Amino acid sequence: MDNSIILDILSSLHNRRLTVESAYEKLKNLPYEDISIAKVDHHRHMRQGVPEVVFAKGKKTKDVVKIARSLYRKSKRLLITKASPEIYKKLKLKDAQFFPDSGIIAVSDKKRKKGCILIVSAGTSDIPVAEEASLTASFLGSNVESVYDVGVAGIHRLMDIRNLIDASNVIVVIAGMEGALPSVVGGLVDKPIIAVPTSAGYGTSLGGLTALFAMLNSCVPGIAVMNIDNGFGAGCLAHKINILKKS
Amino acid sequence: MDNSIILDILSSLHNRRLTVESAYEKLKNLPYEDISIAKVDHHRHMRQGVPEVVFAKGKKTKDVVKIARSLYRKSKRLLITKASPEIYKKLKLKDAQFFPDSGIIAVSDKKRKKGCILIVSAGTSDIPVAEEASLTASFLGSNVESVYDVGVAGIHRLMDIRNLIDASNVIVVIAGMEGALPSVVGGLVDKPIIAVPTSAGYGTSLGGLTALFAMLNSCVPGIAVMNIDNGFGAGCLAHKINILKKS
Amino acid sequence: MDNSIILDILSSLHNRRLTVESAYEKLKNLPYEDISIAKVDHHRHMRQGVPEVVFAKGKKTKDVVKIARSLYRKSKRLLITKASPEIYKKLKLKDAQFFPDSGIIAVSDKKRKKGCILIVSAGTSDIPVAEEASLTASFLGSNVESVYDVGVAGIHRLMDIRNLIDASNVIVVIAGMEGALPSVVGGLVDKPIIAVPTSAGYGTSLGGLTALFAMLNSCVPGIAVMNIDNGFGAGCLAHKINILKKS
Amino acid sequence: MDNSIILDILSSLHNRRLTVESAYEKLKNLPYEDISIAKVDHHRHMRQGVPEVVFAKGKKTKDVVKIARSLYRKSKRLLITKASPEIYKKLKLKDAQFFPDSGIIAVSDKKRKKGCILIVSAGTSDIPVAEEASLTASFLGSNVESVYDVGVAGIHRLMDIRNLIDASNVIVVIAGMEGALPSVVGGLVDKPIIAVPTSAGYGTSLGGLTALFAMLNSCVPGIAVMNIDNGFGAGCLAHKINILKKS
Amino acid sequence: MDNSIILDILSSLHNRRLTVESAYEKLKNLPYEDISIAKVDHHRHMRQGVPEVVFAKGKKTKDVVKIARSLYRKSKRLLITKASPEIYKKLKLKDAQFFPDSGIIAVSDKKRKKGCILIVSAGTSDIPVAEEASLTASFLGSNVESVYDVGVAGIHRLMDIRNLIDASNVIVVIAGMEGALPSVVGGLVDKPIIAVPTSAGYGTSLGGLTALFAMLNSCVPGIAVMNIDNGFGAGCLAHKINILKKS
Amino acid sequence: MDNSIILDILSSLHNRRLTVESAYEKLKNLPYEDISIAKVDHHRHMRQGVPEVVFAKGKKTKDVVKIARSLYRKSKRLLITKASPEIYKKLKLKDAQFFPDSGIIAVSDKKRKKGCILIVSAGTSDIPVAEEASLTASFLGSNVESVYDVGVAGIHRLMDIRNLIDASNVIVVIAGMEGALPSVVGGLVDKPIIAVPTSAGYGTSLGGLTALFAMLNSCVPGIAVMNIDNGFGAGCLAHKINILKKS
Amino acid sequence: MDNSIILDILSSLHNRRLTVESAYEKLKNLPYEDISIAKVDHHRHMRQGVPEVVFAKGKKTKDVVKIARSLYRKSKRLLITKASPEIYKKLKLKDAQFFPDSGIIAVSDKKRKKGCILIVSAGTSDIPVAEEASLTASFLGSNVESVYDVGVAGIHRLMDIRNLIDASNVIVVIAGMEGALPSVVGGLVDKPIIAVPTSAGYGTSLGGLTALFAMLNSCVPGIAVMNIDNGFGAGCLAHKINILKKS
Amino acid sequence: MDNSIILDILSSLHNRRLTVESAYEKLKNLPYEDISIAKVDHHRHMRQGVPEVVFAKGKKTKDVVKIARSLYRKSKRLLITKASPEIYKKLKLKDAQFFPDSGIIAVSDKKRKKGCILIVSAGTSDIPVAEEASLTASFLGSNVESVYDVGVAGIHRLMDIRNLIDASNVIVVIAGMEGALPSVVGGLVDKPIIAVPTSAGYGTSLGGLTALFAMLNSCVPGIAVMNIDNGFGAGCLAHKINILKKS
Repeated sequence: MDNSIILDILSSLHNRRLTVESAYEKLKNLPYEDISIAKVDHHRHMRQGVPEVVFAKGKKTKDVVKIARSLYRKSKRLLITKASPEIYKKLKLKDAQFFPDSGIIAVSDKKRKKGCILIVSAGTSDIPVAEEASLTASFLGSNVESVYDVGVAGIHRLMDIRNLIDASNVIVVIAGMEGALPSVVGGLVDKPIIAVPTSAGYGTSLGGLTALFAMLNSCVPGIAVMNIDNGFGAGCLAHKINILKKS
Repeated sequence: MDNSIILDILSSLHNRRLTVESAYEKLKNLPYEDISIAKVDHHRHMRQGVPEVVFAKGKKTKDVVKIARSLYRKSKRLLITKASPEIYKKLKLKDAQFFPDSGIIAVSDKKRKKGCILIVSAGTSDIPVAEEASLTASFLGSNVESVYDVGVAGIHRLMDIRNLIDASNVIVVIAGMEGALPSVVGGLVDKPIIAVPTSAGYGTSLGGLTALFAMLNSCVPGIAVMNIDNGFGAGCLAHKINILKKS
Repeated sequence: MDNSIILDILSSLHNRRLTVESAYEKLKNLPYEDISIAKVDHHRHMRQGVPEVVFAKGKKTKDVVKIARSLYRKSKRLLITKASPEIYKKLKLKDAQFFPDSGIIAVSDKKRKKGCILIVSAGTSDIPVAEEASLTASFLGSNVESVYDVGVAGIHRLMDIRNLIDASNVIVVIAGMEGALPSVVGGLVDKPIIAVPTSAGYGTSLGGLTALFAMLNSCVPGIAVMNIDNGFGAGCLAHKINILKKS
Repeated sequence: MDNSIILDILSSLHNRRLTVESAYEKLKNLPYEDISIAKVDHHRHMRQGVPEVVFAKGKKTKDVVKIARSLYRKSKRLLITKASPEIYKKLKLKDAQFFPDSGIIAVSDKKRKKGCILIVSAGTSDIPVAEEASLTASFLGSNVESVYDVGVAGIHRLMDIRNLIDASNVIVVIAGMEGALPSVVGGLVDKPIIAVPTSAGYGTSLGGLTALFAMLNSCVPGIAVMNIDNGFGAGCLAHKINILKKS
Repeated sequence: MDNSIILDILSSLHNRRLTVESAYEKLKNLPYEDISIAKVDHHRHMRQGVPEVVFAKGKKTKDVVKIARSLYRKSKRLLITKASPEIYKKLKLKDAQFFPDSGIIAVSDKKRKKGCILIVSAGTSDIPVAEEASLTASFLGSNVESVYDVGVAGIHRLMDIRNLIDASNVIVVIAGMEGALPSVVGGLVDKPIIAVPTSAGYGTSLGGLTALFAMLNSCVPGIAVMNIDNGFGAGCLAHKINILKKS
Repeated sequence: MDNSIILDILSSLHNRRLTVESAYEKLKNLPYEDISIAKVDHHRHMRQGVPEVVFAKGKKTKDVVKIARSLYRKSKRLLITKASPEIYKKLKLKDAQFFPDSGIIAVSDKKRKKGCILIVSAGTSDIPVAEEASLTASFLGSNVESVYDVGVAGIHRLMDIRNLIDASNVIVVIAGMEGALPSVVGGLVDKPIIAVPTSAGYGTSLGGLTALFAMLNSCVPGIAVMNIDNGFGAGCLAHKINILKKS
Repeated sequence: MDNSIILDILSSLHNRRLTVESAYEKLKNLPYEDISIAKVDHHRHMRQGVPEVVFAKGKKTKDVVKIARSLYRKSKRLLITKASPEIYKKLKLKDAQFFPDSGIIAVSDKKRKKGCILIVSAGTSDIPVAEEASLTASFLGSNVESVYDVGVAGIHRLMDIRNLIDASNVIVVIAGMEGALPSVVGGLVDKPIIAVPTSAGYGTSLGGLTALFAMLNSCVPGIAVMNIDNGFGAGCLAHKINILKKS
Repeated sequence: MDNSIILDILSSLHNRRLTVESAYEKLKNLPYEDISIAKVDHHRHMRQGVPEVVFAKGKKTKDVVKIARSLYRKSKRLLITKASPEIYKKLKLKDAQFFPDSGIIAVSDKKRKKGCILIVSAGTSDIPVAEEASLTASFLGSNVESVYDVGVAGIHRLMDIRNLIDASNVIVVIAGMEGALPSVVGGLVDKPIIAVPTSAGYGTSLGGLTALFAMLNSCVPGIAVMNIDNGFGAGCLAHKINILKKS
């Protein structure tokens, strides 16, 4: 947006080349976006919270690389989710780290991470989603602790991480199959819990729908649920909650 | 079946009014059922295990009453499931007990109950199904212990019934909503577990489908699942497993 | 649990009627729950956060009334969800307020409410769920602002409540039908958003599943979703997040 | 159809080799199709609107090439949808253009395009469907404007294209994931809107069903929906609506 | 919105009590909506097309009556959809007509209706939806012709209404069960077709989902589909398309 | 249709008031239906097979009664399906028989029934559907034998009806719950089998979908399936197959 | 089964080495299958109708080849469905024909085919299923006529095959997408119709479920439906119906 | 856990450096897990029943090999399910057997197997699941008999295995497609039955859901169901039931 049009109108008014009424009319008839969008854009910066992130899936490798480099040049930071090894190879950014399990490419800044998010997952096949949540929240500025392999059938392991649980502001619980882990964690602690169903399992796991529905029906009040395999979203939300504590 | 036909053929053979070949032909051409059904019926008695039970739902009151009285007259025992108060009122059997929560009418014999089945349920609204399972297994001859209100969010209550768990041959776990309780119980004990999902819940509980699928996807190996709200079936199966121990 | 057993063992050790080894053995062989449950119960108090709440649906009126009165006697506070007018009538608690749209009966204390939760809903038929969320969070101690009738087709109304949005720590967005409102709100602000689908609508609204799935698939990162019509859960979680800010 | 049979009958009548009655009988007993099909065929030309289009999916390459060449020879125009690069390679038509994203091969005539259709899409992965709609409507004779990357989370971009919106007769809105864009567009304008859900997304996007159902449940009255990924159908319908304006 | 704030700023600038810069700052920091909403509201009038309509379902009778009377007072026009007889009784508007099959209450103006919309339905139970579409489009200002009872199994009836078909700008086809009628109509004519599935049927009609999916999968290109039983939406869209012809 | 128009044209041609060409043109430009529909109607009589049947569900009582009486007057025959007792009461036809289980009202002629259709059903709650199939086929002119209560768990009963099976031209098998009966019957005989799933059952019977899908997946080749509870359709099809034998 | 045991018993009775009673006892206590299975096997031959068919899908190539050769050796006839080219290559039977579209390998005898089955299909992608039905019915001994490419959008083509329709005993209608063709055919003729949905289509065709449900909900009474893509089953059933006519 | 902390406390008490009260306090405040986990671990050994099993699916080959070798070293026993040939190749354990159909790698001990489990399956494609169940139960110590190819359409084969059925303690029935076999087996015998649906089939077999739902709706009381293709779980549960008999 070019603010000079508004300034011109105001100057003309100031110089009395315009009456109040005609200035008002001119302002009112400005192309819609000239004023409102400026504000939106202003708010947009406030909204950012999740800046410089590229969702690679469904995009062509060359497009991802181009967008990613441009973002990196501006801010020296970058997060690419659902990235293929090929993207990493073609990206050729010295600082970039590639996490093949979760398909994440990240260039983080070195700022101190804040607060504490605990990420708990159940099975081996849930780790990519947990890693995506963890890298996302960390990239956004949150301190993250991850504990893998805490299943319902081994509840006692939850006891081992009691201190971690107590120290965290928000807990992300990731589970596939019957999706019972968030209920079990939620039965033990009084923190906000974000549940992420994964598509791990077969047959009636229905690609994660069973875990999703089980989590939505948790008998523990106050568990919110993300889309299947949506570690990125969980990381974003956990970060937004985590930073509430200190702000 | 009337066995006299076969006896006639055999007599004729014995009396040499028939050759072996023609007797064989006659037997072979008997209406199919004349021989085989006799055996099936014989086996049917062996199969009984679940005798004298009337499923009232979808039947007319007067039909249920008629069948029930006839069964009672023969054996002085009776179990009616999904029965309405109206049926109980019209049945007019002095010995019959009516359980309005589960809609069961029962006339049990006084034989000593065998073994031990433990029935564990989670919420208030699961009790009718638990009661149906319990009354069924008990009617069939099993000793049953029931513990209600043991939810995932209160796992410690499971600890209180450790002795009951250890004493039982098979455990029936009944739960609605996210259906996580069988996994939690199964993580603590090494007994055969029969899981029964209930239609308790709303929204994405999908009338019990969510609990059903969660149970089928339990990360604990060796949990079998019944149809939604099928306390009767769980009671039957638990009884069949329970009596294995002593036979 | 009766702690006297443990104290007896310790006394015997102190009096040297037991060796260290045998005392250790005795402790180790105590019924499992004797020690651990005490702790669980201790933690349970910490876990409470959502105390003195009765879920009335599927319970008998007389049972709800009995539990509710007992809770009220202990704490002079009470929240009953999904309550019928009949329950309210039989409850006969002078301080209790009945909200017939959401079916809530509440006796709140007069403590000052903390922080700020904003509850935004779309249509007339979403109001009962919004009210349930609002009354729950308020009962738990949060300050709540509610704005009804903010639909996607009238986005500009969101602009009118800009100040409320900015002042809140967490936003609960409630919508039926196509469930697009959380995405639109999430596109404008950078707060944690809890989305609650409602069963409002007909045909392919599928009793709220369409809104639920749409919310889970929001293109705005970081929106978490509750079960259909689960205003109570949203109120609990919003409260847990809201109080993070000040603690 | 060969009209000579009818003409023969009429001639015979005219020549009085037939009576009126027998001519009537003969006409009535003509093979059904002889008369009615002629008309159907006549109407069929009127019906064409969507001529010379080949749906390549599920057909063998050689068959597609053969049909396509035959169509091209007759009319020097051609549209192949869901075409593979292999088909394009084997087709060897100098004038043909291949659009690999949408899998379209087109030979258009040079006639001036009429009216205006606006095609709005949300994400990168919706572009193939948008392109299919655009190329189809353009091939049929409509003027098309396309604006990509207008998501719910960036509503202000809609403001930037206000003029395009005002100039169009009908708007095609293409979106995957939560499918909220048609509602948002429909909240701003008073034009016929055709919504096309795409299969973009993962987990509970259910291959586009979530976007489809969300669009069907739009709170904005008067949005019609096409099958998932059906850009071709949307292009056809938009064209039919667009040309109403000028006819 | 109160424009006086803007006018005050402009006046102060004109009176040189403000510099151009500070006036600009003040304008920029006005509550967001002060300027933009004015425009939105302006557009909103343009957007109306579907004014003065009340969706009664899920609202309380007294609320519907209150809103309806207020709308009527302003414009002497009114359309209430999904209305109960009770609403009609309490509304007490002399000019209002009640259509009990479709649950519509209408007060139309007497303006001449424009263009032509043809509404075709299949079975007796589809009539309420057809009537809703018809009354809606007519209320909005379109001329509507309705033909009921034109099923797939009686295709020849379509022939009887050939003239109506040819005279219409857009055709609304309403069908339940297998939802084949739109395909059959679409095979005969080259007009925009809006298909509305109804919930008529039983078993695998799945409450209208089968008809919906069948319509979405029509082999005839260019058929758009509304939500199940959504006669109102079809009427709105048909009107928007119909008036294109003459504008 | 009025044939006089065609006859007029032909007469004019015969009288040489028209040339062959202009007569041809006139015929060609006749409203489409004038010729073709006559034939369709002619074929329609051939198509009848299922005449004089009223589907009462979703129609108003008074409408059903009116249609039914009119049909009865013409042919002294009548079949109303899904009829309420109220319809029967208001119909007041001396010859009409009411079958309350299946909701059928029938006035049959006394013609001899042809061939043999065997109808086999499993449970008490399947009887209404079986009765609907039986009464329909009988009304249409087929001889029908019905055997109820032949479940999978009592296969031997099938043996008892071996003679009936052998004597029938086509077998209709009706079953709810797991829908296994058609497979079992199909494993024993080599007749065309029509399977009808019923909505009997609860939980995962999914209102008959489970039985439907099971039947469609029968491992016995050559079993065709009707809609859930569609006894009427099964009766029609069985009749059409049955009469093939003798024609 | 070895009949010698029965013959031994009968001989012993004949030789009076056994009394009638002990012979009867011996027979009754024979292993169940000794008698009944003989009959079953006898019936099994009657049941055959569909002999010498191998379903290749899910079996290993070498196993299919082995079974197929063994079947061929016995009867010089063979039908393999869902066969891969690899199976055909390894089978090396001089008389075998391979149909790659439907994946069928057939060795037919040269017997004259009986009656007439008409197979009608809609689109190019339905041809493999139509071919499977056709080859199956022909292999079993029925005369088959196939007409491809008869879609709903070109109903007039049905008129062209009026004679074929009239000459057939049963009609198999194969269609994907919206599955409307069976209704349209059923509206024109009074023959038994077997509808086969195909998995052709995309998006909400749901892999054929939409066509399946549409067919089950046909407003034409008496259409029976096969599993998706089940041309083999349709061929079997059509054959069983077709041969009724002549037997 | 390090027990030395508890021993230290007890020693201090014994040495009277602590009072009973302070020792009690110290014990109570020990990190939760110090005591309880010990017990859990103790119980965990009891819970084992299914030890030394690796679920390979979703794990990386090198991880599976590493875990498997470690398990093998400790116990000389091993079971890997859903293993690829590649895992077997890299594992290089002399004693290990690979079953490619079911993807199982097993190293069993030579202990005598106990009791009897009968595993019955229907079709060729169900064999991998049956093999998984069989190898699992056998690995755990149960004697297993397997009978393949016993379909509903060939019930008489069940008669051939009457003796096996009578000798078994529990029967595992594996079936895909319509899933009717468990009902048929359950109609003949009075043993606990575990039903396992398989994903064999196509179209409406819905990847095994149809068989699953059919099994859950069995009209035979007392059949429990496992997840689709879950042979491993069935083997575990069957073993737990089987060993009840002898213990």
